[in-house]
Amino acid sequence: MTDGVSPELIGFAAELADASGAVIRRHFRQPLTIEDKPDSSPVTNADKETETVLRALIGRRHPGHGVIGEEYAAHQPDADYLWVIDPIDGTKSFIVGKPLFGTLIALLHKGRPILGVIDHPALGERWIGARGHPTTFNGSAVKVRPCASLKQAVLYASTPHAFEGKDLTRYERIRRTAKLTGYGADCYAYGLVASGFIDLVVETDMAPHDYLALIPVIEGAGGKVTDWAGRPLDLKSDGTVLAAGDERVWAAARAEMTA
Amino acid sequence: MTDGVSPELIGFAAELADASGAVIRRHFRQPLTIEDKPDSSPVTNADKETETVLRALIGRRHPGHGVIGEEYAAHQPDADYLWVIDPIDGTKSFIVGKPLFGTLIALLHKGRPILGVIDHPALGERWIGARGHPTTFNGSAVKVRPCASLKQAVLYASTPHAFEGKDLTRYERIRRTAKLTGYGADCYAYGLVASGFIDLVVETDMAPHDYLALIPVIEGAGGKVTDWAGRPLDLKSDGTVLAAGDERVWAAARAEMTA
Repeated sequence: MTDGVSPELIGFAAELADASGAVIRRHFRQPLTIEDKPDSSPVTNADKETETVLRALIGRRHPGHGVIGEEYAAHQPDADYLWVIDPIDGTKSFIVGKPLFGTLIALLHKGRPILGVIDHPALGERWIGARGHPTTFNGSAVKVRPCASLKQAVLYASTPHAFEGKDLTRYERIRRTAKLTGYGADCYAYGLVASGFIDLVVETDMAPHDYLALIPVIEGAGGKVTDWAGRPLDLKSDGTVLAAGDERVWAAARAEMTA
Repeated sequence: MTDGVSPELIGFAAELADASGAVIRRHFRQPLTIEDKPDSSPVTNADKETETVLRALIGRRHPGHGVIGEEYAAHQPDADYLWVIDPIDGTKSFIVGKPLFGTLIALLHKGRPILGVIDHPALGERWIGARGHPTTFNGSAVKVRPCASLKQAVLYASTPHAFEGKDLTRYERIRRTAKLTGYGADCYAYGLVASGFIDLVVETDMAPHDYLALIPVIEGAGGKVTDWAGRPLDLKSDGTVLAAGDERVWAAARAEMTA
């Protein structure tokens, strides 16, 4: 591939999100079959059906591409082009009828995320990031906002209960410094970083399908996203995530999380 | 007044929510003037403008009614009919572009809440509860769901950081027992109790404009809402709130929060 992602691939990613959204909206706030996975996180028939639909569309249009999804086994994971999908990120929100859950669709080329979609089917809201293009929100370009310091930052995390021991101490230092802290926004928080409303997201225990789609979205809006140690995120990262709109806030948070 | 709230009053409350929604949507995700109040919570020009519009509408239609709002001084607080309004509940969500904030409109008659609206203008979603009528969500009747025990309950709170000392210990006991815990849904969580998706909400430091509108919504859907000690909520309550869809969960949570 050349420097920028082709409009064809971006269009196809949007088609995928249209298809997943149609499935998910049919199931939202309707009776669900809910199972507990081995890690005790819930999975529903809607998660599975959505991933099945996305895999079928990818297989039909791009049979040479690989797919890694949250719910089923990897397909051609060594392909140059690899889709990494989370049909419903925020299943806990989905099952309680809270509309901030989203579908995450990433495309990697030789291991590097080049395209990402954060789609919120219950809200009709979608961020798309693609290398060589500005990140868009429902079709309009968005940008992160400047924020000079942690003290002025709006911080988000999924839940404080994800942090333990030394990590909790580090996180608490950031939280007590930040101007305002919010929880429970799932992947929506990363979209709001790209759109310039949130300055910092700190997370842990994330899987590749949770973070890879966020990278092109945030980078294409001018932000920065790495693990806590400042390393780029890829399929083998340690599950920690630091996303910021302004590099100064990213650097300050990185210093705290590794202190 | 007779046993049920008149359709005229319910219709007027909906008109109020239409009007507040129109103001708030104009300001959502637009540049805001943000001030810190004495309690260090934020207030925006949108909060103030919304309350001004609601007060004007009430004064014109029902000049004999009183109004207590979050942002301005009480007007005729001794009137038999008293409106208690929070123009934007969840201002912290509003200013970061997260659409779960809502407008809360309560009507008290001789101190008792008889009508409540939870309106989410960025989502186009509205719960209305009124004595003598089933609670509605966007016009359709809703009901709480049965839940036999804390162990099976979905719990919500605004943030765990609101709890301190002994209260935090009590809250943590409930959280560790509950099946699933979520944060950051503002007044939306109470709507989801009425609609049968969330089983329990535990809060503290609430003001009358934060909780009075929730009461008719939850009671009209078959749920129960009191302070932690199990007392009915009124203008002089202590700021603790326990809302549950099923009385068994309410009783268990009450026992834990007063243990």
